[in-house]
Amino acid sequence: MRILGIDPGLRCTGFGVIEKVGEQLRYVTSGVIKTAAAKGEDTEDLPARLKIILAGLQQIIQLHQPEQVAVEKVFVNVNPQSTLLLGQARGAAICAAVLNDLTVAEYTALQVKQAVVGNGHAAKEQVQEMVKRLLNLPAAPQADSADALACAICHAHGGQGMGKLATAGFRVRGGRLV
Amino acid sequence: MRILGIDPGLRCTGFGVIEKVGEQLRYVTSGVIKTAAAKGEDTEDLPARLKIILAGLQQIIQLHQPEQVAVEKVFVNVNPQSTLLLGQARGAAICAAVLNDLTVAEYTALQVKQAVVGNGHAAKEQVQEMVKRLLNLPAAPQADSADALACAICHAHGGQGMGKLATAGFRVRGGRLV
Repeated sequence: MRILGIDPGLRCTGFGVIEKVGEQLRYVTSGVIKTAAAKGEDTEDLPARLKIILAGLQQIIQLHQPEQVAVEKVFVNVNPQSTLLLGQARGAAICAAVLNDLTVAEYTALQVKQAVVGNGHAAKEQVQEMVKRLLNLPAAPQADSADALACAICHAHGGQGMGKLATAGFRVRGGRLV
Repeated sequence: MRILGIDPGLRCTGFGVIEKVGEQLRYVTSGVIKTAAAKGEDTEDLPARLKIILAGLQQIIQLHQPEQVAVEKVFVNVNPQSTLLLGQARGAAICAAVLNDLTVAEYTALQVKQAVVGNGHAAKEQVQEMVKRLLNLPAAPQADSADALACAICHAHGGQGMGKLATAGFRVRGGRLV
C-alpha cells in the first residue's frame, strides 16, 4: 500500500510517499512544493499559488500512484488572516487527492508526533530524526518533508500511538531517543 | 464575455453565471451547491464536502463555459475553526477555476455591495433586489445565488464603485432604492 502524506502550507507544502509492505515501511519520495517566487516574496497572487500546490500534488499522485492520502490538520493560527490563507492551501491539497478519487485521512500534529516519536510535543528535530530511522534514510529529511513523511507513517500505523514498528529497535524516553 | 461569480462557503457555495454583451448584462444561470446532508447535519467529512464543491463548480464551468471567475473574499470569522473551514471551501472553489485555466479575480463583500447597491454596507435583501433588477429577473434570487451573481456583476463593472449600468434607470439614496 502506498501512502502520500501532506503537510499543507501556502508557502511550502511538504509531501512524502511511503510504501507499506507487510509491517515494513519503505521510502518512495518526498519533497516540498514552494509557491513563493525565488526571491521569497509574496508576489504571486493566491489563485496562482493554489494552482501550484494543486498541480504539484497532482503530478506526485500521477507519478507515484498512492492509494491513500494522509493530511496534517493545520493548527489554527492566532492571526485570522493567516488561518484563512492556510485553510485555502489545505483546501487545494485535499482537492488534489479527491480529484484522483483517493480517500483522505486527517491527523493532528499531536497524533503524528505521538505515532512517530511517541511524544505529541516532540521537537521538529526529533520528528526528522525518527523519520530518518524509521525509513532507513541516509540523512534526516528537510522539516516540511519530514512532517509529511511522518503523517504518512502515522497513517500506516493506523493513526495509533507508537506503532509496533516505531518502537522496534528503538527506545524512547521522555520523547528522546536513547 | 461570460463571468462566473462564486460566493464560497463550506455548507452552501453560491454560484452565478452572467454574460456581458457590450454594456448589457444577461443572466445565464445561478444556484447553490449544498454540501451538508439532506438532514442538514455535519455528517459528511471535510474531504467529501470539498469534493462536492469542486465537482459542482467544475460541472458549471464545463456546462456554461465562463471566461472569467470572480470569487468573493470571505470575511474572517471570530471563530478560528470556522475561518479555517471557510478557507478550505474557498480553496476548493478557486481550484475549480484554476483547473480550467480561468483567471480569478477577488472582491470583498464591501466592493461587491458598493458595485451593485452603491452602499458597501447594504443588507442582503437590497443585494437580492438589485441583482433582480440589474439582470431583469422575474424574482429575486436566493441569498447565496444573489451574492454570487452580485460578485459577477461587480467584476463585469471592472470592480469599481457603482458601474454605469447599476445607476442607469435607478436611484439609490442611502443604500436604498428610491
